Amino acid sequence: VAPATFYDRLDATLHHQRTCLCVGLDPDPERTPAPLRGLDELDALRTFLEGVVEATQEHCAAFKFQLAAFLAYGPEGIGLIPPLMRKIGPERIRILDLKAGDFPNTMRLYGRGVFDRLGFEALTASPYLGWETVDEIAKDRSRGVFVLAHTSNPGSKDVQERTTEAGRPLWEELLGPLRERASSKNLGAVVGATFPAAVGKARQALGPEVPILAPGVGAQGGDLEATLRLGRGSGAGALLINNSRGVLYASTKADWKEAAGAEARRLAQAMRVA
Amino acid sequence: VAPATFYDRLDATLHHQRTCLCVGLDPDPERTPAPLRGLDELDALRTFLEGVVEATQEHCAAFKFQLAAFLAYGPEGIGLIPPLMRKIGPERIRILDLKAGDFPNTMRLYGRGVFDRLGFEALTASPYLGWETVDEIAKDRSRGVFVLAHTSNPGSKDVQERTTEAGRPLWEELLGPLRERASSKNLGAVVGATFPAAVGKARQALGPEVPILAPGVGAQGGDLEATLRLGRGSGAGALLINNSRGVLYASTKADWKEAAGAEARRLAQAMRVA
Repeated sequence: VAPATFYDRLDATLHHQRTCLCVGLDPDPERTPAPLRGLDELDALRTFLEGVVEATQEHCAAFKFQLAAFLAYGPEGIGLIPPLMRKIGPERIRILDLKAGDFPNTMRLYGRGVFDRLGFEALTASPYLGWETVDEIAKDRSRGVFVLAHTSNPGSKDVQERTTEAGRPLWEELLGPLRERASSKNLGAVVGATFPAAVGKARQALGPEVPILAPGVGAQGGDLEATLRLGRGSGAGALLINNSRGVLYASTKADWKEAAGAEARRLAQAMRVA
Repeated sequence: VAPATFYDRLDATLHHQRTCLCVGLDPDPERTPAPLRGLDELDALRTFLEGVVEATQEHCAAFKFQLAAFLAYGPEGIGLIPPLMRKIGPERIRILDLKAGDFPNTMRLYGRGVFDRLGFEALTASPYLGWETVDEIAKDRSRGVFVLAHTSNPGSKDVQERTTEAGRPLWEELLGPLRERASSKNLGAVVGATFPAAVGKARQALGPEVPILAPGVGAQGGDLEATLRLGRGSGAGALLINNSRGVLYASTKADWKEAAGAEARRLAQAMRVA
């Protein structure tokens, strides 16, 4: 029996969880909830993220781990990832956000670490080194690769929106080759929800089946309604919408855990999958 | 007393070591030297890299660690980095090659991990998310940030060489803003030695002072003589030339360590700093 493709896994998870909410585990050490501030920094981070996962996992389809937030604490920080992965388990899509973009032989090593060793279902990748980067890391069709197209930050204008000789922004020119490659049924695109028109353009160019991961709803001010309307594709929608700070820091007082759960529940309902 | 800028540190190191050789610690698990193959994979990697560092450090100005090669082994792999850093010590430029490219608040976390926690003197960064990425990670002027301009792989044509509406390749348009920012005296550029003409263009556009990190000499076939001629800048040259596989796998038999040292010595002489 051929293993399921990443598209199969994502679609089944979206149907099962009935929401496209992705909770971003991007903790900011400056914003640790007050009751945890007396702990050793690593214990505080572990307790915080375990609490967030416990409170939110019933409400979301996916978790996006930010590599930098763990690497900030060195090897011990990376050591927090495996127990969190086990706590979440394989019934959610677990994404490592590291924006990897390197030579094929290096991408193979990222695949070993991120997929085989740490067990993530998907990662984010940057196209700056070209398509050979993506082709190598996407060889295992059961694992997803979300390629950066148009990110949600103001700096996206500097390179991504640069106009090419064809008169189009660079990032839009990446969508055609991405769609072609997506016949492997494990490639997606990152398109920030702070630019809903970009989400719509990406959906049109990628066709209905290619998943879009849209960060930026919440603290960054992305438009949820427009992102849902313009970004949804076929099946269970082929769309994940990430919120990090809105959930993580719903409260930084004694009720931080309950508040994170309540905010995830509210967002999950606003992001219902029919 | 103001701390030295990265340019000061690099220039002093190049003068002291009298070579611009950077040894790349990009180990490939498929090519572990025969005498180490009986060991546990992590012990094999540790023994191999310790041996390479011992044999080559007198001959080089810098070491470039490839993050993926360590992350491939999960938290324990990242745990190999601190003892290697101590073994090398601060008299060489230690660069983490992770091609980080993310939001400013995430780049701040990469800085904590890579500079403050792990102790690297420099890292590589991708410009795909725009200049705010670079501006944040370059705030500490004592730490270097090498921004990807034109990489040494064939895929560099896909995005980096795309022609803009101004009729120039995208990567060349990044050199002007990079040069402006480099007044902070800690920014450099990555330009692959497999495209010596690109090294020359980068040197012209960046002026004499901005350091260039040029990988790709050796296994990738980059032209050493042309890279030296076209890439050298002012002071001690403001140039680092990386070789990974040529040194690491000079021999994969019993003499692997001596062979790595001999190859590093040979390259160091070919890359003499006057």
